[in-house]
Amino acid sequence: MGAELGPNRYGKGGIHVATVVRREDRHEFFDRIVDVRLEGDFADVHVAGDNAPVLPTDTMRGSVFALCKERPDEEAEAFALRYTAYLLEASAAATKAEAWVTERPWERVVIDGEPHPHAFTLGAYRRTAHVIRDRSSATLFAGIEGLSILKTTGSAFSGFLRDRYTTLSDAEDRILATQLRAEWRYAITDLDFAAERDAVKDAIVRAFAHHDDSRSVQHTLWEMGCAVLEASSSVQEISFSLPNLHHIEADQSPYGLASEGQVFVVTDSPSGQIEGTVRRATEGSPPAP
Amino acid sequence: MGAELGPNRYGKGGIHVATVVRREDRHEFFDRIVDVRLEGDFADVHVAGDNAPVLPTDTMRGSVFALCKERPDEEAEAFALRYTAYLLEASAAATKAEAWVTERPWERVVIDGEPHPHAFTLGAYRRTAHVIRDRSSATLFAGIEGLSILKTTGSAFSGFLRDRYTTLSDAEDRILATQLRAEWRYAITDLDFAAERDAVKDAIVRAFAHHDDSRSVQHTLWEMGCAVLEASSSVQEISFSLPNLHHIEADQSPYGLASEGQVFVVTDSPSGQIEGTVRRATEGSPPAP
Amino acid sequence: MGAELGPNRYGKGGIHVATVVRREDRHEFFDRIVDVRLEGDFADVHVAGDNAPVLPTDTMRGSVFALCKERPDEEAEAFALRYTAYLLEASAAATKAEAWVTERPWERVVIDGEPHPHAFTLGAYRRTAHVIRDRSSATLFAGIEGLSILKTTGSAFSGFLRDRYTTLSDAEDRILATQLRAEWRYAITDLDFAAERDAVKDAIVRAFAHHDDSRSVQHTLWEMGCAVLEASSSVQEISFSLPNLHHIEADQSPYGLASEGQVFVVTDSPSGQIEGTVRRATEGSPPAP
Amino acid sequence: MGAELGPNRYGKGGIHVATVVRREDRHEFFDRIVDVRLEGDFADVHVAGDNAPVLPTDTMRGSVFALCKERPDEEAEAFALRYTAYLLEASAAATKAEAWVTERPWERVVIDGEPHPHAFTLGAYRRTAHVIRDRSSATLFAGIEGLSILKTTGSAFSGFLRDRYTTLSDAEDRILATQLRAEWRYAITDLDFAAERDAVKDAIVRAFAHHDDSRSVQHTLWEMGCAVLEASSSVQEISFSLPNLHHIEADQSPYGLASEGQVFVVTDSPSGQIEGTVRRATEGSPPAP
Repeated sequence: MGAELGPNRYGKGGIHVATVVRREDRHEFFDRIVDVRLEGDFADVHVAGDNAPVLPTDTMRGSVFALCKERPDEEAEAFALRYTAYLLEASAAATKAEAWVTERPWERVVIDGEPHPHAFTLGAYRRTAHVIRDRSSATLFAGIEGLSILKTTGSAFSGFLRDRYTTLSDAEDRILATQLRAEWRYAITDLDFAAERDAVKDAIVRAFAHHDDSRSVQHTLWEMGCAVLEASSSVQEISFSLPNLHHIEADQSPYGLASEGQVFVVTDSPSGQIEGTVRRATEGSPPAP
Repeated sequence: MGAELGPNRYGKGGIHVATVVRREDRHEFFDRIVDVRLEGDFADVHVAGDNAPVLPTDTMRGSVFALCKERPDEEAEAFALRYTAYLLEASAAATKAEAWVTERPWERVVIDGEPHPHAFTLGAYRRTAHVIRDRSSATLFAGIEGLSILKTTGSAFSGFLRDRYTTLSDAEDRILATQLRAEWRYAITDLDFAAERDAVKDAIVRAFAHHDDSRSVQHTLWEMGCAVLEASSSVQEISFSLPNLHHIEADQSPYGLASEGQVFVVTDSPSGQIEGTVRRATEGSPPAP
Repeated sequence: MGAELGPNRYGKGGIHVATVVRREDRHEFFDRIVDVRLEGDFADVHVAGDNAPVLPTDTMRGSVFALCKERPDEEAEAFALRYTAYLLEASAAATKAEAWVTERPWERVVIDGEPHPHAFTLGAYRRTAHVIRDRSSATLFAGIEGLSILKTTGSAFSGFLRDRYTTLSDAEDRILATQLRAEWRYAITDLDFAAERDAVKDAIVRAFAHHDDSRSVQHTLWEMGCAVLEASSSVQEISFSLPNLHHIEADQSPYGLASEGQVFVVTDSPSGQIEGTVRRATEGSPPAP
Repeated sequence: MGAELGPNRYGKGGIHVATVVRREDRHEFFDRIVDVRLEGDFADVHVAGDNAPVLPTDTMRGSVFALCKERPDEEAEAFALRYTAYLLEASAAATKAEAWVTERPWERVVIDGEPHPHAFTLGAYRRTAHVIRDRSSATLFAGIEGLSILKTTGSAFSGFLRDRYTTLSDAEDRILATQLRAEWRYAITDLDFAAERDAVKDAIVRAFAHHDDSRSVQHTLWEMGCAVLEASSSVQEISFSLPNLHHIEADQSPYGLASEGQVFVVTDSPSGQIEGTVRRATEGSPPAP
């Protein structure tokens, strides 16, 4: 029997690093978890047990701390770009380096309207940066994950396909809730990352809130995607993952009470899973309706 | 051999209910997970398999939705008081009913300075209410959990006990980080719960941030407890659970770099675990130093 | 305002240690997570910021590794006894030391009927040891947790109390499923811990499986408790925590199919929560019916 | 600005179904969580809010229960094949249906050597089935996940690449531990799935245990992959995901003790991440060394 090595990669997950920038009047604090993978010519590592081309995953860990020391005040996106460049430089066998940074958003404490110089509380969602780099170029993504967002009206789901197993009723007014994950690709890498990220997040939240005739999660996904492309000319495309976190009106009839859109059973699973990408139309592609 | 039934209780966990209050100009949204236990004379249930005195846990579930329908705009504390009263009324065998409510804090979306009427995002920590009720009285607790809070300076840990296994160095300036859980007991149950809760949380965050000569997690725990008792005369005592989430400075010496308080390894475990209660001094007890 | 320090304790959680015992013909492998708390006279630590009486939680961590080095082949129960004794010896201010050990059960790989000398796979549930020690005595508990156990028949729940919110139907034949947690207290501490633990677990599983007229989770709890007291004369009492993991028959009527006890919706939450202790009857107490 | 819809899909996650097969002498019990996605021509759903082509995710849920009722004793692989066929039949707009089944392995209780007719305990890892089906064909994968496996000797990692950030020492004898996930693709879909799965799992465990000169996780990955291809002629390729769960020898020198390979710090993160595929050599490809 002949066997061969197919696609393979290796790296480190869960490298958790924090940096403090000690300015005179205030501190900045960054809290990031880094994941990384290398791909390349590692066949002999597997087949012959030859470790000569292997940059240890322990080095991938240690180098995060060293690189952060050099630029402790860097945005996650810039770090991911620099880190992947180091990895390709360090590993001759590698043809591709991929890094993901998940940032926990510590927010400065405000007391009596005054920002505190060195106290922070943790916010609710996470920011992400993601770089795919080969020997000739780098692709940069930024994102947010764990953003739970909900509207209590302005959302419907009706007029859908019915088959022999379909029991769902049309809903003209339902709660729409999701735990949003989005990742967008930048056209360039020389950007004010914080400003871009805030603009994208703001566009997403606005579009979600203002989309008052949502016909489906998909419909709102499209609305949010278009809003982002409009809000930032640097964003080439944005992908969403939108679980539909169902809120089912409680049946009050056994208790002799009326169901009037007030009380809901929140279910954790199963959940709908809606995923999709909105991108700038390529030349020659038909315009979106 | 003689066996007997010792302490026992039963109930339901994870009852997840949401309520929408549809006011003319805006909606309110509450999202709560309810846990409940009953204690009482349930020996025959165990020993003889006699279910006659057992209010089913399914009824504990269903009644949450019915009770919420009656008062959808109620605070979690008021709901827990009413729910435990219902349970004792419904179950003649029960001598004690205990309920815990964990509230996920949905915050109204603000767009261009305008609060949105029906869109919300989820905040970072959770609020809790907890009632212990017997046939003659009820004890009410409120709380917060999952509040991650951190300061980058103003915290030390030194001058501690040393034994043959102690290798820790004195630290005069360290990062102090915790994921705070607190539960406080109210002297009375007729309160503006939202206002009390905000006052307590505010006192905790202020005390944490302003305690600039923290000698230990315990030291800051005391400071926060005293601040809460001062901020709200309705609070009789407050208990804290404060994991010490260690941030260990990365050793840069192998890379020929200096360690200057900028880059830290964040460890998830092990973690210190500090727990303590601060309460109003009982008559005749010596004043706190 | 007078404030005082109420109950308090401190310690370390999540100390993860593995030991290898390298015998000539085979290795043993133990994998344990240790938690610990000290109580005592620590008021000045909180109130005055005086760390002199504080054994650092880092020492609680380091000493686990040192103590394991001295006796790498020790059972978890013996380790917890020795560890708490060390802690009281090391900390003059402490009046009580409590330790919990959670052991992940690695099982030796068997190939063609032959036990492998040094390869292991991880089993499904965890074993626990728990010691509470003061200056005069120690109390020892052992336990199991995460033991998912289920029977597809031989379980009923009917004849229960009904009130205005009760909609549950009587069930004469239902699936009974739980994720069992049990902790039992030993009368003495000089025991063959592995043999005791196996006897207790065996008694629990047998009683669960053989209890063919289960009227409720409580009813089976009692059955299992009595079986354990009978199986091991060293066990003084045993406490169970038994979530009722509901399996609800899927309603096939919308699809024109019959519901015949074959297909079930498994729900993660809400779940029933049944907790209770079975203990040896104290002298003079009435015999169990 | 022109926007267009890029890749998109939708479905349901977390459909949890259990089936009981009530044979005369014993019951069988299956416990599965189903995820599903559809891809196809759903542009108008997003862009125009037209739900006409949308088979509701609620129907994807309900149909699982109906299909299980028709064949409650079916293996997970067969179910996934049948389920995806139904989905393409039900949804004219779909061009591709993908389903994942995760099976929790309940094992029959054995008492005094006798298999119990209807009592089960849950095993330690999960089995998976995965089907990708388009209008012309189906691709079938099976797998295991969460299989924690470990060896206390017979594993080294040395001779690796060193750069300016590399501090790791060569290890000639280390603990090798992973939580294995594997997914293999079958050449055909008409198989004794249980027998195949057992043969593959057995080959993996054997290869892991017997690979006594493991030079790296990658080296053992290759060994396991080749063993699987040899054990089952139906397997075309197998992909592994192998976190390297580091066990770092505790430094005993501060305590005046020797480090002799007995006591280890178990770290949860960061962890190495090794992924790779071993497949049958395609015609003309060079044989594996």
